[in-house]
Amino acid sequence: AEVKKIAVIAGDGIGPEVVAEAEKVLKRTEELFGYRFETEHALFGGIAIDEKGTPLPQETLEVCQNADAVLLGAVGGPKWDSNPAELRPETGLLGIRKALGLFSNLRPAVVFDCLKDASTLKPEVLEGTDLIVVRELTGGIYFGEKYRRETENGQQAVDTCAYTVNEVERIVRQAFEIAQKRRKKLASVDKANVLESSRLWREVVIRVAADYPDVELEHVLVDNCAMQLLRRPSSFDVIVTENMFGDILSDEAAMLTGSIGMLSSASLGAGSFGLYEPVHGSAPDIAGQNLANPIATILSVALMLRMTFGYADAADSIEKAVAEVLDAGHRTSDIAVDKSSAIGTIAMGDLIVATM
Amino acid sequence: AEVKKIAVIAGDGIGPEVVAEAEKVLKRTEELFGYRFETEHALFGGIAIDEKGTPLPQETLEVCQNADAVLLGAVGGPKWDSNPAELRPETGLLGIRKALGLFSNLRPAVVFDCLKDASTLKPEVLEGTDLIVVRELTGGIYFGEKYRRETENGQQAVDTCAYTVNEVERIVRQAFEIAQKRRKKLASVDKANVLESSRLWREVVIRVAADYPDVELEHVLVDNCAMQLLRRPSSFDVIVTENMFGDILSDEAAMLTGSIGMLSSASLGAGSFGLYEPVHGSAPDIAGQNLANPIATILSVALMLRMTFGYADAADSIEKAVAEVLDAGHRTSDIAVDKSSAIGTIAMGDLIVATM
Ligand SMILES: CC(C)[C@H](C(=O)O)[C@@H](O)C(=O)O
Ligand SMILES: CC(C)[C@H](C(=O)O)[C@@H](O)C(=O)O
Repeated sequence: AEVKKIAVIAGDGIGPEVVAEAEKVLKRTEELFGYRFETEHALFGGIAIDEKGTPLPQETLEVCQNADAVLLGAVGGPKWDSNPAELRPETGLLGIRKALGLFSNLRPAVVFDCLKDASTLKPEVLEGTDLIVVRELTGGIYFGEKYRRETENGQQAVDTCAYTVNEVERIVRQAFEIAQKRRKKLASVDKANVLESSRLWREVVIRVAADYPDVELEHVLVDNCAMQLLRRPSSFDVIVTENMFGDILSDEAAMLTGSIGMLSSASLGAGSFGLYEPVHGSAPDIAGQNLANPIATILSVALMLRMTFGYADAADSIEKAVAEVLDAGHRTSDIAVDKSSAIGTIAMGDLIVATM
Repeated sequence: AEVKKIAVIAGDGIGPEVVAEAEKVLKRTEELFGYRFETEHALFGGIAIDEKGTPLPQETLEVCQNADAVLLGAVGGPKWDSNPAELRPETGLLGIRKALGLFSNLRPAVVFDCLKDASTLKPEVLEGTDLIVVRELTGGIYFGEKYRRETENGQQAVDTCAYTVNEVERIVRQAFEIAQKRRKKLASVDKANVLESSRLWREVVIRVAADYPDVELEHVLVDNCAMQLLRRPSSFDVIVTENMFGDILSDEAAMLTGSIGMLSSASLGAGSFGLYEPVHGSAPDIAGQNLANPIATILSVALMLRMTFGYADAADSIEKAVAEVLDAGHRTSDIAVDKSSAIGTIAMGDLIVATM
């Protein structure tokens, strides 16, 4: 098979540990299916600030640009939290999204059977919840002009939220296409009763919807969406929204599944290139202790194999192995009811590899 | 007693019905406690668009400005949803907040015992939840410059989010003071890892915190807050945040209590003047059918008596009457388990008045 290049960014906190397990899974995929992967590691986030003086070194960007896909562990931690903007891990994250043109962030929120009880929602409310938030990732208030200025009322800070028709249209079309392959329901979330960018958003959605007559569309105001996610989570299929709203709503959606330690995400651009990462953070409090749950990162690999490489057989095999290992009762401590019988990061990775 | 002037804005949908019950309660308060109220009705929202061609007629603003407090039912409805901005009820809402200087919106989210089971959250998670969101109400992206322009990449829509130090400081001080009178915990919510306005926000919070050493302060990123509200709602006491984040988080918080039909809110300015309204909307689908639950509006009156007029005895009496009527098993259909035994809007108002 053709050699696929994967840039591997372990990052900070538990990042290196969970990525190591995901790499074992990649290796096993080569053995089992004959696919060939070439991985190249690169520094990013806090560790890059420490070693290179910037969260996103030029050489890291080049490694990513030369790759077919990127696997990211996790970045950030309290150590860098009070740094100035240009020396913060988050700035690297925004930079890499922009530089790689990753305008779409897919965040599936599904409930893992074995974790049903981990949710704070009642099981009967959660029943059947399986949604995906499609978040615009390179526009809006995240990337608009930011500055301070002196006014007659004192110092003022300003952020700018801007969207062009094209920026909205490409993400909305992608969301409609994802909905067509699922339950054919799309909720477009905006604040069109207040924001001009939301009014433009809604106009584009209404126009584009004509090309997807088989998809049932609803417009939901962002405040109402925050409520409806709680009230009727299982009624959502695909949710599409702008960057800032997507940040908030995708985290709310992930948390209500109770499965946040297990959720993977994909950030995509125009072609098949993508960046894959777990939804959870760098968890510095448990880093280096063989305690982290590697499943979200392993499932991120499965998502990469499916979405970027089209290796559905391998993706299926990984997802099935994860399900079997969980069904057999194995748990890392974050998802274990009885913590004393929990297994470590490495043991979990080994079990999944052995089960594939 | 001194005559207190109350501007009454019934508004749209169920607004007139629930306000009528609240006025009965005001009248009973006069009889029982010797207080004196003078109410003046004014047109606002959808009905003002229909009858006066604008959601906020000048005379309505004057009625409010001449009053000591405003009681608002609810505004809006599908009838006006596709109007241009200047002919939408929401525009009136933003206009009245700005014109009356109501920079602070207090949204208590409490769980009513009789409604515990109405929440989609597990009872053990909800247990002890009693929080208040203090939302900045006249700044941020709601009131910044908004426009469209042609760029080399096509049409673009722009919103501006701006905050001055003073705008942040007055709301943050108010939140600290509210926290001092409660459980002395304040969560300040921002997105300081991305937004300049949030960095200014956090700087002000840190500086002002020095004046309230007895209040335990935490900074929470808005995406994380959307998660933590679900995970540990009872751990929050006071949450303070900017306008847009407050819109989203206060609705999430209200919904997780399961008691949204019962929650009241206050919008305050610099002095004792305030605008009081139920958290719920205008519910056009049940309007005019004697089905709406008037309790949130009646509790908004209690909040007005307590906060603007300092009539704690009367406020207590109303709140106690509401609790007793509920304890006796009376329910409007929105909160009734057995809908067939539900009572109407008027009957619920009468029962509360009779119990005071
Ligand atoms: C770290 C932060 C900049 C980032 C974001 O807000 O996009 C994170 O919250 C995420 O959702 O990926
Ligand atoms: C109607 C709308 C403009 C308003 C807001 O967003 O402020 C409403 O959602 C609210 O929370 O009072």
